[in-house]
Amino acid sequence: MMKERVVAVDLGGTSLRLGLVDGAGRITRRRRLPMRIFTSREDLYSWLAEAVGGFIEDGRERKGGRWARRAACDSLGPAAVGIGFAGPSDAERGLVYYAPNVGCLTDLRVASRVGKMLGLPTFLENDANCAALGEHWRGAGRGARSLFLFTVGTGIGGCFLIDGQVWHGAHGIAGEIGHTVVDPRGPKCNCGKDGCLEALVSATAILKAYRRAAGTGVNGMGAGRESRLTAKMVFDRARRGDAAARSVVDRSSRALGVGIANVFHLLNPEMILVGGGVSRAGRMLLGPAVEEARRAIFPPLQASLKVRRASLGDDAGLLGAARVAFRHLAGI
Amino acid sequence: MMKERVVAVDLGGTSLRLGLVDGAGRITRRRRLPMRIFTSREDLYSWLAEAVGGFIEDGRERKGGRWARRAACDSLGPAAVGIGFAGPSDAERGLVYYAPNVGCLTDLRVASRVGKMLGLPTFLENDANCAALGEHWRGAGRGARSLFLFTVGTGIGGCFLIDGQVWHGAHGIAGEIGHTVVDPRGPKCNCGKDGCLEALVSATAILKAYRRAAGTGVNGMGAGRESRLTAKMVFDRARRGDAAARSVVDRSSRALGVGIANVFHLLNPEMILVGGGVSRAGRMLLGPAVEEARRAIFPPLQASLKVRRASLGDDAGLLGAARVAFRHLAGI
Repeated sequence: MMKERVVAVDLGGTSLRLGLVDGAGRITRRRRLPMRIFTSREDLYSWLAEAVGGFIEDGRERKGGRWARRAACDSLGPAAVGIGFAGPSDAERGLVYYAPNVGCLTDLRVASRVGKMLGLPTFLENDANCAALGEHWRGAGRGARSLFLFTVGTGIGGCFLIDGQVWHGAHGIAGEIGHTVVDPRGPKCNCGKDGCLEALVSATAILKAYRRAAGTGVNGMGAGRESRLTAKMVFDRARRGDAAARSVVDRSSRALGVGIANVFHLLNPEMILVGGGVSRAGRMLLGPAVEEARRAIFPPLQASLKVRRASLGDDAGLLGAARVAFRHLAGI
Repeated sequence: MMKERVVAVDLGGTSLRLGLVDGAGRITRRRRLPMRIFTSREDLYSWLAEAVGGFIEDGRERKGGRWARRAACDSLGPAAVGIGFAGPSDAERGLVYYAPNVGCLTDLRVASRVGKMLGLPTFLENDANCAALGEHWRGAGRGARSLFLFTVGTGIGGCFLIDGQVWHGAHGIAGEIGHTVVDPRGPKCNCGKDGCLEALVSATAILKAYRRAAGTGVNGMGAGRESRLTAKMVFDRARRGDAAARSVVDRSSRALGVGIANVFHLLNPEMILVGGGVSRAGRMLLGPAVEEARRAIFPPLQASLKVRRASLGDDAGLLGAARVAFRHLAGI
């Protein structure tokens, strides 16, 4: 079992990441390909199958030379494929309802179609769920009996784990914290609602709010530079005392704090993790968010709130996708 | 087993309800006592033990006459006691952190102390959790693999059941939907936060908002009558076209809709039930709430939202408390 390998696939917004993962959660080989937009489902299925197939083949070809030892393992061939996919999906049925990252395709049967093309058992899981499984397996969530993960990136995802298992809910969409409403008078979300957590805390939301607050080309910088503005730059400016950036970051932190407190009251997990690109802002975002959340909790329980930064970065998703494949192989 | 009886106790805001319940979920004898305020924990424990003890004794004394048959069953004596208790509590440890209904006592060890006084195994569960267990056993929630219950009364409680078991969370407070924030610019809650669901939808909140909107003694009625105003009267006035009442009811419905949609996105239960006194307003409250919730859900999943009124009324809590006792007896 420990010698078995699986291919883990993380289908992100800007890149496709592939990893060969062993039973101990080590990533022994990696690849990153740029994402593209797909015009049809078949187009996506073939591209994915080719990318995974090529990754497996390259492992086999690397015999001799400095690849010899590694190839000896790889040559057994992976036993399965686990795919982490952004968008609301039903993991049990292998169905993605809607995939914003790949050209807004709907009703994708990724696992069964790609698996058939590869001739390998292939399993699907939502990317936020993969990240939580990865953190629980090898990262900051190890040992937690219940855990909720916020992934704060271009969008906001979430996942609730009970005893290390994803709680999918009745229709596979449980954990969608990004589309819970935390302020009905807040900014409009891409989903059409007002004041979703995603419309207040995601990288996209932070950029949008900052552009509105500061105006383009502010501080004597040209529109060219401002058009390449990132959420990270907004945090950097807030650190340097830019008032507009400061106020946007404050609002986002407070909204994240409301989201954390709501999860604590409703699910009461042993541990809450915050991961995703925006979480790299670290204490500046998380400090005030945890303070806000703690204030919102009934005093005798305030000390029970345990919020940590996720520790595996991008690897969490790959490891979680691998975990899904290993569990399916083991029949768990 | 089916001949076994347990005493179910529902410690509400205004009355203590007792019931003798059999294994099929039939309440074969009942009693209701007015609640009082307690100045110490011991005072509460003794009063509860006396009330339950008296209820059991009276069953035994009713031999002969028209009580003969019933007493033949009762005389076996109940096998255990199940207590439903308002307030954040840790059912596994039998600890109530805080009990607003009985004079704001804290850190109550109700199950162990009352059980010792009675000489009977005694078990505790939060009252909203009891209501959900009751509805799942004998009411509108029968057969649901996962279920979330909102109890909308003087306060707002909630409970999440997975496969008929309460999800208590790491510290026993899971399901506290009443203290999730749905509008940070909304009215202040008793807990100190702004815009908790409880501060927008509970009977107390509806009354408070109506008094503010309409002013006391409005519509030519005296202050005397207005001081006896109830949430039910606010709904009745809204039905008759009172604009202030209408606007308060609309706001509450919308807030309940946000709460329902948040639960759907985060927990994605198969069924959502709404119970408690305020739910008796029926379609007037629930109709717009469900519409609001449905609008908030990703379109392909809108048809999956299943919201029902709880069907057992006050008996849900008694039956759930009995269920808790039966399960403990069976070692489940």
